[in-house]
Amino acid sequence: MTVPTVDALVFDVFGTVVDWRSGVIRDGKRVNESKDITVDWAVFADAWRGEYRPSLDRVRRGERSWQNLDALHREALEELLDRFGVEGLAETEIEYLNRVWHRLDPWPDAIPGLLRLQSDYVIAPLSNGHVRLLTNIAKRAGIPWDLILSAELSGHYKPDEEVYLTAVDLLDLDADEVMMVAAHERDLDASRAAGLHTAYIHRPLEWGPDEADSTEKPDESAYDIVADDFVELAEHLDASPIIR
Amino acid sequence: MTVPTVDALVFDVFGTVVDWRSGVIRDGKRVNESKDITVDWAVFADAWRGEYRPSLDRVRRGERSWQNLDALHREALEELLDRFGVEGLAETEIEYLNRVWHRLDPWPDAIPGLLRLQSDYVIAPLSNGHVRLLTNIAKRAGIPWDLILSAELSGHYKPDEEVYLTAVDLLDLDADEVMMVAAHERDLDASRAAGLHTAYIHRPLEWGPDEADSTEKPDESAYDIVADDFVELAEHLDASPIIR
Repeated sequence: MTVPTVDALVFDVFGTVVDWRSGVIRDGKRVNESKDITVDWAVFADAWRGEYRPSLDRVRRGERSWQNLDALHREALEELLDRFGVEGLAETEIEYLNRVWHRLDPWPDAIPGLLRLQSDYVIAPLSNGHVRLLTNIAKRAGIPWDLILSAELSGHYKPDEEVYLTAVDLLDLDADEVMMVAAHERDLDASRAAGLHTAYIHRPLEWGPDEADSTEKPDESAYDIVADDFVELAEHLDASPIIR
Repeated sequence: MTVPTVDALVFDVFGTVVDWRSGVIRDGKRVNESKDITVDWAVFADAWRGEYRPSLDRVRRGERSWQNLDALHREALEELLDRFGVEGLAETEIEYLNRVWHRLDPWPDAIPGLLRLQSDYVIAPLSNGHVRLLTNIAKRAGIPWDLILSAELSGHYKPDEEVYLTAVDLLDLDADEVMMVAAHERDLDASRAAGLHTAYIHRPLEWGPDEADSTEKPDESAYDIVADDFVELAEHLDASPIIR
């Protein structure tokens, strides 16, 4: 693989930087304990995340105006609480649960890799999460972003090209000076179509251990870089090690 | 003074966080050495900064379209190089000098104060500098912003209210949950008119030691907080000390 010269790296967040599924399960189990119920929060998490793309696509097709992920997550959450028979949550408890998406933990390699990359590149998230959500995730987990980029800044959602081009513009770069890093081919294919370089990170555990075998790693030729984690990405990009 | 409860602090940068004048003088002196000339870069710095407000105001009045500070600084720089008789600079040297605004050092209290504030508040710049310029200043100097906010995100320049309201919106807060921190009353007065809380920081050295006595500190009642530096600001806001 020939590694291109870029100035900035932008990262998908849900699934690529943070493990959304474990976070939802963690906070859901606390709801089980406090309400003495037995919801399967792994199934709940997958169903919640499953509502994600259709709700974004309704925004993307112009069937509804742009709203941030808190609003879209909340609509889906209310429907799912009903479907899973979770009753008796106070408004503050529902809102706290909805904001679990602000309290997700990074994959173990994410911060070690980002710290190395940060010494040589400008690094930023480029997620469908809104600016404040991404700020909260980073502040809570200590993710060392140089700045927060988000679909929100374009008024569109990925994979609309406006998201990528707005980020490139705010970085004051040309598209080919920026690399999009993601665990999802749809995101990377749209980035490449917008002129960005691309790095695929393999996250077989995104949908849980039972789905690990069905997540196929693309061929090495599909993107500029195909790597197993952020530390391997940093090595491909010759980023300086923090501890030798 | 009754200190209000806020969730986020946004900071003017040139003069408030960083010492633009010393930075321009520092890099200018290197031009003197390399070109064997004797320009007074303190006078040059003041003249360059003096072009700032008129050029922003032409954008604000709609006499010209929005352009970032690199473009506005460059126009003024070319005129001033001519006026001060600086000749023989290559294009790369002119461009390097123009980007001195990306290489400014923080006032000595800025990072110690921001580190304390960051543990209790969301902190961000809110400058007329564009996103990339503010990112570069922060990355070079290690300023621990949680996110980069900028006039650029609104397509306006301070003190237009759109700048403040766009920042409040991206923070997902109400205006009175945000405090604007600046060394300039014009900025603070416009912030207050937009509904934000305000903190004045006294920077008598912004225009150099000769002007220190003519920079008057406003009355304590003029803003929510009037402080001499960022550490005093952190103390007023009860931010946790990093080292006790």
